[in-house]
Amino acid sequence: MNITQLAIIDLGSNSARLVLYEQDQQGMLFEADNVKQVLRLSSHITQDGVLDDEGVQLTLDCLRRFKDICDGRGVTEIVGVATAAMRQAKNGPELCEAIERETGISIRILSGPEEAHYGYLAVVNTMNLRDAFTVDIGGGSTEVTWVEDRVCVHKISFPFGAVSLTQRFLKGDLPTPEELKNLEQFLREQFASAPWLTKRLRPVPLIAMGGAARNVGNMHQKKRNYSFQSLHHYTLNSADIADSYQTLVKTPLDKRKKIKGLSKDRGDIIVAGVVVFSVLLQVTGSEHFVISTKGLRDGLMFERILQGQNDNVLEDVSLYSARQWMKRDRVNSVRAEQVSRLAVSMFDQLQDLGLLQADAGQRRLLQISGLLQDIGLSINTYDAAQHTFYLLTNVLLYGLTHHQRLVTGMLASYKTDKKLEKQFSQHKDMITPAELPAIKRLAQLGLLARFFNRPLAGQVRSVQLEKRGDQILLQCRVLPKHIIDRAQVNELLEAMSKSYGQKFAYELIEVQP
Amino acid sequence: MNITQLAIIDLGSNSARLVLYEQDQQGMLFEADNVKQVLRLSSHITQDGVLDDEGVQLTLDCLRRFKDICDGRGVTEIVGVATAAMRQAKNGPELCEAIERETGISIRILSGPEEAHYGYLAVVNTMNLRDAFTVDIGGGSTEVTWVEDRVCVHKISFPFGAVSLTQRFLKGDLPTPEELKNLEQFLREQFASAPWLTKRLRPVPLIAMGGAARNVGNMHQKKRNYSFQSLHHYTLNSADIADSYQTLVKTPLDKRKKIKGLSKDRGDIIVAGVVVFSVLLQVTGSEHFVISTKGLRDGLMFERILQGQNDNVLEDVSLYSARQWMKRDRVNSVRAEQVSRLAVSMFDQLQDLGLLQADAGQRRLLQISGLLQDIGLSINTYDAAQHTFYLLTNVLLYGLTHHQRLVTGMLASYKTDKKLEKQFSQHKDMITPAELPAIKRLAQLGLLARFFNRPLAGQVRSVQLEKRGDQILLQCRVLPKHIIDRAQVNELLEAMSKSYGQKFAYELIEVQP
Repeated sequence: MNITQLAIIDLGSNSARLVLYEQDQQGMLFEADNVKQVLRLSSHITQDGVLDDEGVQLTLDCLRRFKDICDGRGVTEIVGVATAAMRQAKNGPELCEAIERETGISIRILSGPEEAHYGYLAVVNTMNLRDAFTVDIGGGSTEVTWVEDRVCVHKISFPFGAVSLTQRFLKGDLPTPEELKNLEQFLREQFASAPWLTKRLRPVPLIAMGGAARNVGNMHQKKRNYSFQSLHHYTLNSADIADSYQTLVKTPLDKRKKIKGLSKDRGDIIVAGVVVFSVLLQVTGSEHFVISTKGLRDGLMFERILQGQNDNVLEDVSLYSARQWMKRDRVNSVRAEQVSRLAVSMFDQLQDLGLLQADAGQRRLLQISGLLQDIGLSINTYDAAQHTFYLLTNVLLYGLTHHQRLVTGMLASYKTDKKLEKQFSQHKDMITPAELPAIKRLAQLGLLARFFNRPLAGQVRSVQLEKRGDQILLQCRVLPKHIIDRAQVNELLEAMSKSYGQKFAYELIEVQP
Repeated sequence: MNITQLAIIDLGSNSARLVLYEQDQQGMLFEADNVKQVLRLSSHITQDGVLDDEGVQLTLDCLRRFKDICDGRGVTEIVGVATAAMRQAKNGPELCEAIERETGISIRILSGPEEAHYGYLAVVNTMNLRDAFTVDIGGGSTEVTWVEDRVCVHKISFPFGAVSLTQRFLKGDLPTPEELKNLEQFLREQFASAPWLTKRLRPVPLIAMGGAARNVGNMHQKKRNYSFQSLHHYTLNSADIADSYQTLVKTPLDKRKKIKGLSKDRGDIIVAGVVVFSVLLQVTGSEHFVISTKGLRDGLMFERILQGQNDNVLEDVSLYSARQWMKRDRVNSVRAEQVSRLAVSMFDQLQDLGLLQADAGQRRLLQISGLLQDIGLSINTYDAAQHTFYLLTNVLLYGLTHHQRLVTGMLASYKTDKKLEKQFSQHKDMITPAELPAIKRLAQLGLLARFFNRPLAGQVRSVQLEKRGDQILLQCRVLPKHIIDRAQVNELLEAMSKSYGQKFAYELIEVQP
């Protein structure tokens, strides 16, 4: 197979990571492997601000190993970066030269704002947002950005992280009120140096990257027995963070380590992480705290994929991501695009006729679900709709909230009300019964567009909706050589008449291709 | 995308089918679409044995439509065949000429034995069998073959099918005992013309294709609330068929149509189908009745893929199928093959040392699961093991029974005992608690082979097992440039010591690449 191998190396303050990506013939990149080596470089920085000999040796050994792995895997391109520890170390540039001499790998030491910017790129290209703050807490630094209309307006890197804050402020097992007060005070002073952090007129979400954020999200999901298996784009309220804070500071370390969802090796530093989130939520006035599992490395990836176009920001995240999955799972894209187009066209006309109250968000989900109706065929033609639902609730569709991903799965896999209700019953914590009728109406539109494109994609070129007496007539411009299953369409239109409270009929008008 | 489109057209007595396959760059074929048109040609054959004008027109119209679909989809190759009705029609060859003239599609009228042979090819290339009978009941003919050591030794086509038998023998709603007796008597006489059908010394399974068989399997699965979502290779006992027979002949048509798992349009002809199965089981002495969802069309496919090699019979069905899925889901095959090899090597040595009581079947499942451990990564790196289990219990791995597919999924996705037990709890109808310890021992071997191949595939070249005092020493020949997570390996070896009742240790011996 003619596959390009790309590696990203991220030399952090706590650990070094090698991520291998494979690029297929269509140019799509997939994570193929992920190697982590804990180096704790921040603890090897002397009081004079130099990385000590042991730290240098550890780093060189690790990079040699990474080089061996890259060679063994036939990697053709390596993107290497280093963050806080190497930035702080006076001998960082010297070490980078040694690394390049010994392994040929070029490591770029990122400035604080550069590091912040890559975090922003990861978030803006994988999440559904326009305005937000982002925060990325590492071991030795914390990057914060302010995003307005998807543009990074401000960015800053603070020279403290979960590890260094813990070492400096939280000496014992259970933090004392005094310690917490000092830490909060310190953070408030630090954040004051970036006046753009203070409250907006309208609150915007705080998007959080890094291990501390992932752990906070994990704990919250375990506690409430959350039904959706995904952490990226998981949203908590500021009150949830306050709860976590209260719980964590009252739990001794040995018990903290047993909290479900919290990594054992993070029990000590999680408190400092949550204090940072808590203070930042107060300062920014944000009401929502959203986890991003994508960060620095993904930002580097997007920079490479987008090659500077549009400042490395995707114009349309969710459509881009849906099309990636469409291609990856070998969906017939000619048909899928036509199903999607037809469904959206009928949606727009129903809105114009006042028969549908829906918003742009729902329109988008209908559009995406049209592209992905056949994704389950990649698993099995038998029960393909069930597989479509499984995939859409488990693959990471970027640019959508969990609720949106769930609804997309319901729309794309819709066949019968019974199955829709079963899907609903598995996710009662995410969706209310009151939403079901609207979801069903959208799902029926998608299914109708599907029927019009089967077996011959594009046989129905367009559909014009018109009020004719007491019914809505669907005038389908259809190719002379079409095969439409009229019984199937009639049955669906009857069901639609019930759910829309409006009679539907259709006629075929032959047009030349 | 550079994809070849292939179409298979199957002009049957009851319906015509067009199946579209796409072939990707690696030469793998996937079903992309499936169009059915009910023609009921058998009811258009006159008493003089001629297909009447309406039947001719229906056929021509249908083929024109199929041609349009093929053109619209860019199909580059069409394989067309016709079966019983066209075989019986005196004007069949003439109609084929007309079809070719009008559409350019060449339809080959299969002889009875040819049709039987393609059914055999479908079964032998997708199922785990050496000796078996196969039966394929269509509307107007029934093909039977006898397979010995995977070779088709005898084949025959009978000129009756579910539709024609119903018309001739079962006139009313509820069949009378007299009618059933006459039908059975008729079938016994017919089957007597093939003396090779009579009982073997050891009973062999009867593999059944066609709609009647699929419906029998479906009904049985619904009745027992079967936990595995697959029909191909589903196995019933001869007693189950006797039960179905008794139930169906006592149920009036209107109630029959409501039986779960039975297609509405098959309520009338299912009785004749089950009588054929019942009589055939008695004649052959078969104790097992196995559903094959693969048939004629798949046989044609295999002929095209294998191009005559080894008489169009795969040497190793399950390995072939596993490697197809491995490639299709972009598993790193270098690593997967090495994991598989290492796991099997340790399996063999443990057997030689008397520490493992397992058979060739279990060895095979370990081998296959090694190839497919990473299949779940294609869905999401998050929870990849769970996705591996979902895929392996839902994709159609050929050449394995359901029980084997379930165990393969458990082996390939093994991470913790807790997850293994959860998987078991979902499939208690298929697997006994007594099997779990042996599955766990195999799963641990697979996981160890996985650890040895991470992060650098092939870093452990081979493992030699040796009894050293009271422990088994794993001597790993390892590349000088390796990265083995020793803590991970040690933890697993400790768990293995418990489940094998035998201490394990390992040492690394560096070798040159």
